[in-house]
Amino acid sequence: MYQQRIVIDGLQYCNWDREYFQTLKASGITAVHATIVYHENARETLTRFAEWNLRFEQNADLIMPIYSMADVEKAKAEGKVGVFFGAQNCSPIDDEIGLIEVMRRQGLLIMQLTYNNQSLLATGCYEQNDSGVTRFGKQAIEEMNRVGMIIDMSHSAERSTLEAIDLSSRPICISHANPTFAHDALRNKSNNVIKALTERGGLIGFSLYPFHLPNGSQCTLEDFCQMVAKTADQFGVDHLGIGSDLCLNQPQQVLEWMRNGRWSKAMALLW
Amino acid sequence: MYQQRIVIDGLQYCNWDREYFQTLKASGITAVHATIVYHENARETLTRFAEWNLRFEQNADLIMPIYSMADVEKAKAEGKVGVFFGAQNCSPIDDEIGLIEVMRRQGLLIMQLTYNNQSLLATGCYEQNDSGVTRFGKQAIEEMNRVGMIIDMSHSAERSTLEAIDLSSRPICISHANPTFAHDALRNKSNNVIKALTERGGLIGFSLYPFHLPNGSQCTLEDFCQMVAKTADQFGVDHLGIGSDLCLNQPQQVLEWMRNGRWSKAMALLW
Repeated sequence: MYQQRIVIDGLQYCNWDREYFQTLKASGITAVHATIVYHENARETLTRFAEWNLRFEQNADLIMPIYSMADVEKAKAEGKVGVFFGAQNCSPIDDEIGLIEVMRRQGLLIMQLTYNNQSLLATGCYEQNDSGVTRFGKQAIEEMNRVGMIIDMSHSAERSTLEAIDLSSRPICISHANPTFAHDALRNKSNNVIKALTERGGLIGFSLYPFHLPNGSQCTLEDFCQMVAKTADQFGVDHLGIGSDLCLNQPQQVLEWMRNGRWSKAMALLW
Repeated sequence: MYQQRIVIDGLQYCNWDREYFQTLKASGITAVHATIVYHENARETLTRFAEWNLRFEQNADLIMPIYSMADVEKAKAEGKVGVFFGAQNCSPIDDEIGLIEVMRRQGLLIMQLTYNNQSLLATGCYEQNDSGVTRFGKQAIEEMNRVGMIIDMSHSAERSTLEAIDLSSRPICISHANPTFAHDALRNKSNNVIKALTERGGLIGFSLYPFHLPNGSQCTLEDFCQMVAKTADQFGVDHLGIGSDLCLNQPQQVLEWMRNGRWSKAMALLW
């Protein structure tokens, strides 16, 4: 039965290679949302796409790119793992509204409006002051709705997230985060947010990242399932997924790139 | 009868606006190869695509983008003018082989290996010395063949052109140029080139640019048709097209951008 279903991991950032693609295929997963960008600008994002194109060319027996839901079904039918892309930041569009459609065509299906910090579009979850969705952010949401790029608020602050949910004419997602009631962390989401999100048809993916889990690295399967069950009881099961946040085989310095990008010279803030 | 045929202009660089799209539609043309780039690098090319996306959005009743031959047939069926893109230079790929596939996906269907000058890929027709297709050029030709991007040698030098014809596993094109026998200019093509091109299945588009025409601006319809007839007699009619090089409603300074780009501070070389 399980084999017949479409199973998607809502977020990974592994060190992608053939061996890992074999693991993915063996897992029975249909498709995975792969983070292609943390802080890369438009030009650098093209290089990330070029690197992925080479992976698709060299591993065509195992993986295929996903541009639409029809491709997910094709991946399932062909026994391949579909890969679709998301940016954890709005850096791929620089300051240019027209790049949303350009990046969508290239295969960027999901974009976070901000990653931890203030961006041109909204406020991140580690800022002291959350001023909500910006002027550019409002335009970007409308354009993302138009071209079919999913808005992801995983790393955004509360007010910005609530505003994005409200402004978007399509359901949005929080691809990888847990409820604050299970573990209180700035990256996790309040009941207010989860309620607004799910009422508007949105989706939240439970994260396996230790700092987001009840009891951290000591989180048991029981702990995890209790969190899921309680969320399902409160908000309904239809809007829940898994965004594992799996980050396999990456060197430690990848955390520095994620957390500090180019905006800080201080030691990596590795929360 | 004419109305049933697919009619394509092999190259234009007009100042594209709604009024001109109406003219194009009224002309009965099915599709046009629009130059999207002269000297723009990868990042700048994205902005050109974004500008075109806006034109498609705002003129969806008149024009549509072409990504494959099926789209040309769709344009014909829907009574719209199809627009497909070419770069007159290899600048959109910077120095990165992987950007060929990225640009192809974005809709760059044709690329010249060089525009008048030496490029990273080959030698242009105004250089004193023609060293042929470069190391990177050979890789680029193979990759363009793989992803289905047409090689255009309109502004290339003779040796480079002959080598590209030979190296390419697919037919190439000279989208806009005339035979040297009709008018001797560095931009026009020798019988050697036209022979090699057409024997390998390639296509040459006759140009209406005055400096390429017999008798220049005084060229009569008779002069033009004699040129075409003589070329057809010599090389067969199957490999001949029209690349009008139409450049309507452009300001004079567009010639400076074409000819000088950013590589020269001297007055525009307006041949």
